[in-house]
Amino acid sequence: MSTTLDSAQYAALRDRGLRLDLTRGKPSAEQLDLVAFPAGGDFRAADGSDCRNYGGLTGLPELREIFSGFLQVPPGQLLALGNSSLTLMHDIVVHALLFPLPGGAGGWLGNSAFLCPVPGYDRHFSVCEKFGIEMITVPMLADGPDMDAVEALAASDPRIKGMWCVPKYSNPTGACYSSATIERLASMRTAAGDFRLFWDNAYPVHYLSPDGPAEIAPVLDACERAGNPDRAFVFGSTAKITYAGAGVAFFGSSPANVSWFLGHLAKQTIGPDKVNQLRHARLLRSPEGVLELMGRHREILAPKFALVNEILRDGLTGIASWTVPEGGYFVTLDVPDGCAAAVVRLAADAGIALTPAGATHPYGRDPRDRTIRLAPTFPSLADLEQAMRGLVTCVRLAAGGRP
Amino acid sequence: MSTTLDSAQYAALRDRGLRLDLTRGKPSAEQLDLVAFPAGGDFRAADGSDCRNYGGLTGLPELREIFSGFLQVPPGQLLALGNSSLTLMHDIVVHALLFPLPGGAGGWLGNSAFLCPVPGYDRHFSVCEKFGIEMITVPMLADGPDMDAVEALAASDPRIKGMWCVPKYSNPTGACYSSATIERLASMRTAAGDFRLFWDNAYPVHYLSPDGPAEIAPVLDACERAGNPDRAFVFGSTAKITYAGAGVAFFGSSPANVSWFLGHLAKQTIGPDKVNQLRHARLLRSPEGVLELMGRHREILAPKFALVNEILRDGLTGIASWTVPEGGYFVTLDVPDGCAAAVVRLAADAGIALTPAGATHPYGRDPRDRTIRLAPTFPSLADLEQAMRGLVTCVRLAAGGRP
Repeated sequence: MSTTLDSAQYAALRDRGLRLDLTRGKPSAEQLDLVAFPAGGDFRAADGSDCRNYGGLTGLPELREIFSGFLQVPPGQLLALGNSSLTLMHDIVVHALLFPLPGGAGGWLGNSAFLCPVPGYDRHFSVCEKFGIEMITVPMLADGPDMDAVEALAASDPRIKGMWCVPKYSNPTGACYSSATIERLASMRTAAGDFRLFWDNAYPVHYLSPDGPAEIAPVLDACERAGNPDRAFVFGSTAKITYAGAGVAFFGSSPANVSWFLGHLAKQTIGPDKVNQLRHARLLRSPEGVLELMGRHREILAPKFALVNEILRDGLTGIASWTVPEGGYFVTLDVPDGCAAAVVRLAADAGIALTPAGATHPYGRDPRDRTIRLAPTFPSLADLEQAMRGLVTCVRLAAGGRP
Repeated sequence: MSTTLDSAQYAALRDRGLRLDLTRGKPSAEQLDLVAFPAGGDFRAADGSDCRNYGGLTGLPELREIFSGFLQVPPGQLLALGNSSLTLMHDIVVHALLFPLPGGAGGWLGNSAFLCPVPGYDRHFSVCEKFGIEMITVPMLADGPDMDAVEALAASDPRIKGMWCVPKYSNPTGACYSSATIERLASMRTAAGDFRLFWDNAYPVHYLSPDGPAEIAPVLDACERAGNPDRAFVFGSTAKITYAGAGVAFFGSSPANVSWFLGHLAKQTIGPDKVNQLRHARLLRSPEGVLELMGRHREILAPKFALVNEILRDGLTGIASWTVPEGGYFVTLDVPDGCAAAVVRLAADAGIALTPAGATHPYGRDPRDRTIRLAPTFPSLADLEQAMRGLVTCVRLAAGGRP
């Protein structure tokens, strides 16, 4: 064969300045047009990319913009991902077990522990339990976790690598972390160089009070100012804004943590469901659009929470105590010590399903057997009223004879 | 307080036979109605459940039914999950690294290896590389992997825990595993008791031939008959049926493997995006609906693959060899030994992006430096023609002077 001819042809080829790509097995736009999910034929993101095709590991920029303020993460450090923030938390624990984090010397596997404010969220605890991460409880107070306890533990035990936090309208007490608490979390000394706050900001705009959402101090800023820029992993989702299980989850952190996570994510997926992200961006439009929608959620939910409080007040004053949250999804009911399991059992026998006693504590063990998480959002007002009146009867019976 | 009164009230409560639930923080239907993604207000699965809310870890039964035959997995053993089968493969490797599989004594972490037919799929290899799983190559032949090599290795090395398989229209050669190959994979002796075939059936209905999809032997049946019922993990997705990145991924296996996986999945997520699954079920309707859609994909793709073959035949006969696949997404081009990297470099300089040389081999190392994966699906016919003619020029130049 004639290499001179080949060289001349190649020179001519190069002169044409092509920009063509045969690298990946992507469908063509014409193929994607074959499928028309009801969505108005609008599949272009703001950057012009076709959301129906592969690409875009970080999620749609326009959706990251909308949630940046609520989650208190700059849009460039906020990723819009799959349908579940729990999955992100689980997966980040897995990555951290197996690979060193920025600031860490190795994976956490073998001998690690998490601080767990109690009462807390059972699915957080399940992740730790699954991977053999020891859970060390700290009391949850009205303005966040007991920081004296947290500081003492974090400073003294290098096995303590993480801490579960639901900083606003906490699950299940509804408490909001005060600025002082957040400041102390951001600046406290930790024996582990790779300690992380798992900042599950699940309810940033999920308010019940007529005054709108509570404000909490931005944790990434506080960590940055305190010289611990990589300390917080922030999570959020639209599960209770749009659809539960069919929403969009978010992850935000420092640039170093975000690139650590993206390095792992790139081996796990080609990218998130951008079509669903585009649906969200189109529906919600702006932060104002989100707040408007949350106002309509509040109209449905506030009467349910008011009813719970009213029935508990009428039936259990002097017998039990409970939270009156200004947002979030739960009421925490503390019955007399030693009665929670009995209440749950009595209620079950009467056809009223309650979260298992102990679920608010690691390993399902509530040492005082007193805390019951109530979830009033799902039932109709009429069903909720029946359930709550029945619950009052169960508590009174179980507590009968006690002081 | 009066326990007699409380007891009487409780008896009356129980007599009412309530069925109420305060367990989980789920939104109410009324809240879900606030959001109306364009979808016609139809959110009920065949079993009556509201797809917009939490629940249903296994995915929609009607969608599992539709894909059961194509993936050769009984619907009860097939799960419909998230948007990415790669994620399922990655996550199952993680679970298997950390926890024993049915038939295994412990996790794979520490010292494990996978068999990798080459040329193969780079994202499979990336998962192994990430977790330090050694990759041992075996040659890919026209009817599947070289089974003499596979059997000898699997029988002798207990570190070999898995094998990547794309059994139909393999990535990138387009080969289909013969029934004899599948029989041998199912029945071969393995030194590891927890050996698994990672059966990535990515292209079950993605045919180019006018005769319709090729048939391959059902691997789960073959494993069951051979007395190795837990040997195969089956994966699939609608990425190249509906939308790439916004489709639905599937996992199927033996009952023991499915329950093992569900145990892990339950800690990682509350459930998949059922709204997207319902969209898929409504759009595709039936196996026939899927095949009808795939026929339309074929009308778009077959001319592209024909063009690739024609241009290679005209320009590279006697210089290179290539596959003429009857389905799938790729053509494998073998240039003279030692030329692949040079071809990719020349093409890049001329504005034609090709998958990096070596990408079809573990660690990116093609020992003969000859294999190039071509992905003709995405470009228009006109762009494809330019890219392929340019590629021919690059191959001729790089191969110039060689025998």
